[in-house]
Amino acid sequence: MSDPVVLYVCTTCRDAADPADGPRAGARLHDALAAALAARPGAPVTIEPVECLSVCKRSCTVAVASPGRWTYVYGDLDPATSADIILDGIGLYAGTPDGIVPWRERPQEFRKGVVARIPPAPVNA
Amino acid sequence: MSDPVVLYVCTTCRDAADPADGPRAGARLHDALAAALAARPGAPVTIEPVECLSVCKRSCTVAVASPGRWTYVYGDLDPATSADIILDGIGLYAGTPDGIVPWRERPQEFRKGVVARIPPAPVNA
Repeated sequence: MSDPVVLYVCTTCRDAADPADGPRAGARLHDALAAALAARPGAPVTIEPVECLSVCKRSCTVAVASPGRWTYVYGDLDPATSADIILDGIGLYAGTPDGIVPWRERPQEFRKGVVARIPPAPVNA
Repeated sequence: MSDPVVLYVCTTCRDAADPADGPRAGARLHDALAAALAARPGAPVTIEPVECLSVCKRSCTVAVASPGRWTYVYGDLDPATSADIILDGIGLYAGTPDGIVPWRERPQEFRKGVVARIPPAPVNA
C-alpha cells in the first residue's frame, strides 16, 4: 500500500485549561490519538510522542512525515476533539504520492493550523 | 566529515519593503545565501529554493535538514543581513550528531526565529 506515516505528537504542549495536577494538553492529545488509532486497525500510521516541537505558542502541535512526502507541522489543535480529524487528514495525506492534499480536501484544522511544511528529503541524501 | 545539510529557502516570502517590480524578500535571501555559500568553499551545505514553506506570516523563512538530524524551521529572517548568520548556525548544526545545538551557542536569529523542529526520520522508515 502506501508508505508508512509517522505522526509526531508534542506531549509537552500546555493549555490554559490544563488541570494543575493533571496531564498536559499535549499528553492528552497523544492519548486521544492512540485510542483513535487503535480503533482503526491497519491504518499505516505510527504515533511517536515527542518532547517539544518548538511550536510552544500554538499548542497542541503535531508533525506528519513520511518517506518521499512533504512533512507538515500543525498547531492550534484541540486535544478533546481533534484526534479523529487528524487521523482522517493523515489518511488523505497517505493517499497522495507527495503528501500534498488538495486545499479544498484538507480538514479545516489543517488549513488554519498549518505551521510549516518541509520538502521531501532528497532520495540519495 | 559530517552528513550533508540541505538548506531550503522559501523564495515566495514577501516583505513589506519589497519593491513593486523587484524580487521578493525570499528570493533576495536565496541569492544572498548562494553568494555567501560561494565564499565558503567546501561547506557541506546545499541550498534548495522552495516555493512556500507555509510560514507566510513570518517571512523570510528557511528550513535546515540533514539525514539523522532534527529538522529546524526558522522565520523572521532579514534578507539583507542574515545570510552569514544562517550559514554560521548551520555550521554549528552540522557539527552535532543529532542537529541539536546547545541553546547558548545558537545565533540570536535562530533562538527568536524558530518556527518548529521535527525529529530525525526513523532509520528504517
